[in-house]
Amino acid sequence: MPILDENRLFPTDPTVRALARDLYEAVKDLPIISPHGHTDPRWFAENAAFPDPAQLLVTPDHYVFRMLHSQGVALEDLGVPRVDGGVIEQDGRRIWRLFAANYHLFRGTPSRIWVDHALQEVFGVDERLSAASADAIYDHIDASLKTDAFRPRALFERFNIEAISTTESAIDDLTWHKMIRDSGWNGKVVTAYRPDAVIDPDFDGFADNVAKMGEIAGEDATIWDGYLAAHRNRRSFFKSFGATSSDHGHPTARTEDLPKAEAAGLFDKALQGKCTPEEADRFRGHMLTEMARMSLDDGLVMQIHPGAVRNHSTGVLAKFGRDKGYDIPSRTDYVTALRPLLDAVGAEVGLTLILFTLDETSYARELAPMAGVYPALRLGPPWWFHDSYEGMMRFREMATETAGFYNTVGFNDDTRAFCSIPARHDVARRVDCSFLATLVETGRLDRDEAQEVAHDLTYRLAKQAYKL
Amino acid sequence: MPILDENRLFPTDPTVRALARDLYEAVKDLPIISPHGHTDPRWFAENAAFPDPAQLLVTPDHYVFRMLHSQGVALEDLGVPRVDGGVIEQDGRRIWRLFAANYHLFRGTPSRIWVDHALQEVFGVDERLSAASADAIYDHIDASLKTDAFRPRALFERFNIEAISTTESAIDDLTWHKMIRDSGWNGKVVTAYRPDAVIDPDFDGFADNVAKMGEIAGEDATIWDGYLAAHRNRRSFFKSFGATSSDHGHPTARTEDLPKAEAAGLFDKALQGKCTPEEADRFRGHMLTEMARMSLDDGLVMQIHPGAVRNHSTGVLAKFGRDKGYDIPSRTDYVTALRPLLDAVGAEVGLTLILFTLDETSYARELAPMAGVYPALRLGPPWWFHDSYEGMMRFREMATETAGFYNTVGFNDDTRAFCSIPARHDVARRVDCSFLATLVETGRLDRDEAQEVAHDLTYRLAKQAYKL
Amino acid sequence: MPILDENRLFPTDPTVRALARDLYEAVKDLPIISPHGHTDPRWFAENAAFPDPAQLLVTPDHYVFRMLHSQGVALEDLGVPRVDGGVIEQDGRRIWRLFAANYHLFRGTPSRIWVDHALQEVFGVDERLSAASADAIYDHIDASLKTDAFRPRALFERFNIEAISTTESAIDDLTWHKMIRDSGWNGKVVTAYRPDAVIDPDFDGFADNVAKMGEIAGEDATIWDGYLAAHRNRRSFFKSFGATSSDHGHPTARTEDLPKAEAAGLFDKALQGKCTPEEADRFRGHMLTEMARMSLDDGLVMQIHPGAVRNHSTGVLAKFGRDKGYDIPSRTDYVTALRPLLDAVGAEVGLTLILFTLDETSYARELAPMAGVYPALRLGPPWWFHDSYEGMMRFREMATETAGFYNTVGFNDDTRAFCSIPARHDVARRVDCSFLATLVETGRLDRDEAQEVAHDLTYRLAKQAYKL
Repeated sequence: MPILDENRLFPTDPTVRALARDLYEAVKDLPIISPHGHTDPRWFAENAAFPDPAQLLVTPDHYVFRMLHSQGVALEDLGVPRVDGGVIEQDGRRIWRLFAANYHLFRGTPSRIWVDHALQEVFGVDERLSAASADAIYDHIDASLKTDAFRPRALFERFNIEAISTTESAIDDLTWHKMIRDSGWNGKVVTAYRPDAVIDPDFDGFADNVAKMGEIAGEDATIWDGYLAAHRNRRSFFKSFGATSSDHGHPTARTEDLPKAEAAGLFDKALQGKCTPEEADRFRGHMLTEMARMSLDDGLVMQIHPGAVRNHSTGVLAKFGRDKGYDIPSRTDYVTALRPLLDAVGAEVGLTLILFTLDETSYARELAPMAGVYPALRLGPPWWFHDSYEGMMRFREMATETAGFYNTVGFNDDTRAFCSIPARHDVARRVDCSFLATLVETGRLDRDEAQEVAHDLTYRLAKQAYKL
Repeated sequence: MPILDENRLFPTDPTVRALARDLYEAVKDLPIISPHGHTDPRWFAENAAFPDPAQLLVTPDHYVFRMLHSQGVALEDLGVPRVDGGVIEQDGRRIWRLFAANYHLFRGTPSRIWVDHALQEVFGVDERLSAASADAIYDHIDASLKTDAFRPRALFERFNIEAISTTESAIDDLTWHKMIRDSGWNGKVVTAYRPDAVIDPDFDGFADNVAKMGEIAGEDATIWDGYLAAHRNRRSFFKSFGATSSDHGHPTARTEDLPKAEAAGLFDKALQGKCTPEEADRFRGHMLTEMARMSLDDGLVMQIHPGAVRNHSTGVLAKFGRDKGYDIPSRTDYVTALRPLLDAVGAEVGLTLILFTLDETSYARELAPMAGVYPALRLGPPWWFHDSYEGMMRFREMATETAGFYNTVGFNDDTRAFCSIPARHDVARRVDCSFLATLVETGRLDRDEAQEVAHDLTYRLAKQAYKL
Repeated sequence: MPILDENRLFPTDPTVRALARDLYEAVKDLPIISPHGHTDPRWFAENAAFPDPAQLLVTPDHYVFRMLHSQGVALEDLGVPRVDGGVIEQDGRRIWRLFAANYHLFRGTPSRIWVDHALQEVFGVDERLSAASADAIYDHIDASLKTDAFRPRALFERFNIEAISTTESAIDDLTWHKMIRDSGWNGKVVTAYRPDAVIDPDFDGFADNVAKMGEIAGEDATIWDGYLAAHRNRRSFFKSFGATSSDHGHPTARTEDLPKAEAAGLFDKALQGKCTPEEADRFRGHMLTEMARMSLDDGLVMQIHPGAVRNHSTGVLAKFGRDKGYDIPSRTDYVTALRPLLDAVGAEVGLTLILFTLDETSYARELAPMAGVYPALRLGPPWWFHDSYEGMMRFREMATETAGFYNTVGFNDDTRAFCSIPARHDVARRVDCSFLATLVETGRLDRDEAQEVAHDLTYRLAKQAYKL
C-alpha cells in the first residue's frame, strides 16, 4: 500500500482539486532546476555509494535531528559528531531505530512528507516507518545503497535534475567541481560564490581567509583595491565552473554605500580585528553593494539571505559546533536596510538581486512592495523553516497580490539532504498548482493562464532568473 | 464572452458559495459611499471628457505603472512626467500597447480585477486585454470617452455614488468644489481636511504653507494661538464644502500631548526650520492630539494613516517626483504611539478616530484590541497594498474576533483611478459576503444576522462613521 | 430550537467535515484538564450559589464589558466597581438588559460562542439572546442559580473537570485551598505559584510583599539568600496544595543570568525602591532564571506569559483600577530575550518551560523554531485575544510545521468565567479536529494518527506537561 496520498496537498473541494491535479499533471515531470542548495559536489565527483540509511537520511538532516533533540534525544545518540571527538553513536541501525521509534514527532511537519516521499519514491518502501518496521526498512535501504542504481550520479539522473548549484566558499579550490568536469559526466553541477568568510569581519579566521583569497587570486588582498580585485578574480574563477550566482548570508539585510576611503578604512580595521560590532556590520553592509556592482559587470545573480541568529545555544555550539539546528530566525527589516544598495543599483535592469527572508511578516509589508517596483529586485521562494505547505501557501497569499508571479523566481530546495530534492520540488509544484487552481475557481485567473503560470513557476522562472 | 466570472471571490464550496452569493445579491446594488479617496474634484467641476484610455487607466494608476516598471519598463515610456520636463511618451496608444503586452504581469493581483471590471462593466469590453486585443480595445474605449455618457458626472451617476469625498490640502482654496456647488449639479462631492503641509515641519515649504494658511484664514498663523485659530477657521471652511473628516498621513502613529509652552516652542522652531528630526516628529505627534481636540468641537471624523516610507528611491524622486509607486510600508507601532492622544481623548464617545495600517501584524496584536475597548477608536478597512481579496480576508480574520464588526467602518476605495471605484466596492462586497457566509456555514453567525451585517458593512457603517 | 449549530467550527467541505466530526466524537466527552486559569478557589471552598446572571456572565468577563464599552457603554452601567466607591449599577437585570440589547456587537467574536454555549449547554436556553428575550432568559438563569445543581461544585462535576488549577500570589495564604482540602470534597482543584508581586520591583508594594513573604516563610527575605530561600519555601507550600506549576507575567520575555553579587545588588536596590526601569527589568529577567533553576529542583512546570502593556488607559486605571480590559498586546522578542535562561537551563530534559505569546508573528518565526530544538521548551496554546477559532487555527498552521504537535501542551482555558470553561474546551477540540481532518484529507497525516493526535491534544499532553 502506498505511503503517499496521490492527492496530497491539493485543495479539498472536489472541483478545485480536479483542476489543481490537472495543472500538476502537466508540470510534475518537468526537469528539476535546483539553483540554490547545499549538496556536496564530492558526491558527484567520486560517485561513491552512500554509507548507510542513517548517514543518508538522519544524521546530516538538521530538520530531523533538531526535532528528535527537542524531545530529549541526545545529539550523540543520533551520530552527530562532537567537537572534542568524544564518543557518539556509530551504528547506523541504532540511529535509525531511534528515528523510527520517534517518527510520530514529525506528524504535521514537512520532514514527514520529505522522508515518506524518499522512502516510497526513491527506495520503493510501502509501509509507514515505525519502531515495528524500522529494521526491515533499514535493511531494504541499506541493500539498495550498495547497488549502482543508488550512487549519486544515477540518482541525479533518475531525479531528472537538469541543473543543480552547490555553494562554495570564496576560498574553496573547487576540487570536486574540477573532478566532475574532468570526469566527462554530463550532469550539470555548478558552483555558487559564497564570500561570507572573506566579507564578514566576525567570521572565524577572517584575516587569514582574506590572505588566502589574495594568494589564490594572485592579488595583494590586504589592501582595499587588491581585495576587490581578488573578489573579481575569484568570481571569474567560479564562473569558469558554471557559477551564475553569488550568495550572502548576513545576520541582517543592512546595506551601505560608503565613500572609498571609509570602506578601505573599515577593511583595514577588520583585518586587524579591531572593528567594533557596529563597524563590522557597516563593512558587511558596504560589501553587499560592492558585490552588487561586481554583479553588474560579471552577470552573477545576487542572493541575500538575512535574518538568522546563528548558534543560539552556547553549550551546543561548544560541544557540537555550527549548523546543529540551533539557528533561529529573527525579526528582519528590509525597508531601511536595503535603501543604500537600492539607491546605488536598484534601478539597473541588468542586475538580478534575489531576496530571501525568515520573517514572514515582511512578505506583504516590505518585500512584495519593494520587488513590485524596483527593477533589480526579485523574491526568492519561502526559505528554510518556511519551505513547507503552509509556508509556501502563506508566501503566495501574501506576496502575489503586490509583487505578482513574475517578480518571483520559482523554487529553491536549499538542501543538503539529497534524497529530499524530488520531494521538495514535488511539494512546491503541488502547492503552486493548488494556489493557481484556487485563483481560477474564484475567478481571479483564467485556466489557460494558470497552466502557463504553473509552467513558469516550476521551470522557466528559475532557469531565467538564475541563467541556468 | 464575459471577462469576469460572475462567482468571482466567492468561496469554492458550493454550499458556502450559494450563501455568499445570496448575501451579495442583496447588497450589490446598494449605493456607493466613498468616504475617503483621491478623485480630482476638477473632473466633476468641469465635466470634461477624459483624454484617452492610457491617461484614464494607466498613467495615473501607481499600482499599474509600478508593476510594469518592476519588470524593466521605463516610467518615461508610460507617460509619467519628468521633473525636468524631459521627453516622455505622449502617444496614448503606444502606452496602452505596452500595458496590454505586459498584462500577464498582473495575474493574481487586484489591479487585474479592477482593470477587467472597468473594461467589462464600464466600457463593455468582452475580450481579455493582450497584445493582440490592445488596439481594438483602445479604439473602443477612446470612442466611448468622446461621448457624453462617459463624462465624469455621467459616470458618477452610473456608478451609483451616493456620496464621495475627495481630499484637499488645508491651504487649498476649494475652487473646484465651489464650481461643483455653483453648477447646480446634485452629485454629492465633499472635501476632506488634509493638513499635512501645515503640520509636518519636514513638508516642503512648511513655513510658507503656514503663512499662507494664516493669510487665507485671516489669522496670524506664525504665533501658536493664531496657528490653532487658523486651523479652526480652515476646518470650518472645509465643513462649508461638506467636509466631515480630516486625514493625517504621518510617517508613524506617534502622538504627544504637550504642555502649551512646549508645543508653542516647537512650533516656533519648526517655522524657523530648526527642528531636529526628533522635534519635528514630536510636533507632528502633538498636532494629532490638537486635531483630535478640534474634532471634539467641530465633529470632523479623524483619520490616521501612518506607516509609509515615502519616496524610497532617491533617483526616482529626483527624476519623477513624489507618488511614483516608491512608497514602501514599514513596521508601525500603535500601542505606545497612540497612548498620549488616547489618554487625552480616547474615552470620548463624541469623537470618531479611524485608524489605518500598512502593517498587517498590527491587526490582531494592536489595532483590534485597542478598537475593541476605546470608545473613540474605529478601524479603517484594509489600506493601499492590502486593498485586495487576500488583504481584506486577512483583515476580517485577524480583526473581527477581537474588535467585532461594529468597530469597523465599511469600505474606503482610497483611489484616484475613477473607473476602478465600482470594481473596488464590488470586491469589498464580495469578500465581506464570502467571509460572512463562511461564518454562517461554520456555525458562528446566523443567516439573518449575516444579511444585516452585510448591509452594515456595505452601506450603513460608512455612512454613519463618516456622517455622510 | 438549539442556539448552537452542531457542526460549528468544522470545515465546510462535506468530506473533511465528516472526518472532523468523527475525530471530535471520540474526544468530545473526555474529561477537562484545565492546567492554567483564574477561577476563584473560594467558589469551590464555600460552594455558595452564584449571585445573579449579570454577576456570573457579564460583570467579571473583561471580553464582554470591553466590547460594550468600546461602543460607548459606561463601565459603571455594567456594574464594574469604581476605585472611589462611586455609584455604579447594582441591578443585575438592568445590566443584563444592556448586554442583551447590544448582543449584536459580539457577532463574529469568540465571546458570542462562549456565551451561547453557556446559555444552551449550561442553562438550557433555546432562544437567541436579544433585547426581546433578555428578561425571560434572565429569569430562567436566575432561577437555575438558586438551585443546588448550579452551585460551583455541582457545575464542576457536571463540566467533567478532572483537574483545574487556579493561580495565587506567592504571598497568598491559600485559605480557600485549605478549606477545599478540609471539606473532603474530591474535586481536584490545585493552585499555581504566581510570584510577580515579589519579583517585579515595579509591582505595587514590592518591598512590603517581600517582607510578608519572608515572614510567612520564616526567612529573612530582605537579604538575597533569604529571599531565594523564602521562594523555595513558598513553592514547597504551594506544592503541598497540589501546585505543579509556576506562572510569570512579565512585560517582556527578557531573561538574564547574572553573577550572584550583581543579582543581590539589584535586589537591594529594588527593596529600597531605587531601581531604574532598566534595572528593574534586568532583575525580573534574572529572577526567571532563578525560578527555572528552582523548577529543576522541585519539578514545578514554568510558564512565561509576556507581552501585555497593562492598564493602557491612565483614566480608566485611576477610576476603575487594574484588569479592566485595557491590557494591550505588544511586539515581543523571544530570540534574544530568552537566550540567557536557555543557555543556563534550556538543555535540561527535566525542565518544562512553557511559552505563551500575544504576538502571533512570533509563532512561525521564533517560538516554533525554538521549541523545535530546545529540550526544555514547549509552546502554550493561543492565549487571551487569540483563544478563538481563527487564533487557534493560525497557531496550528504557523507552529506545527516547525514544532510538531508534541512540543505543544494541549489547551489552557485561562479564564475566570467559570461557565465558559466547557465552551472554551469544546472550541479547542473542534478546531484541533478540524485542523487534523484537513491534514488527513490533504494527505499530510493518516487517519489513525489523526485520532491519536486528537486525543493527545485534548487530554494527554496537558496532563503530561503539567503533571496533573
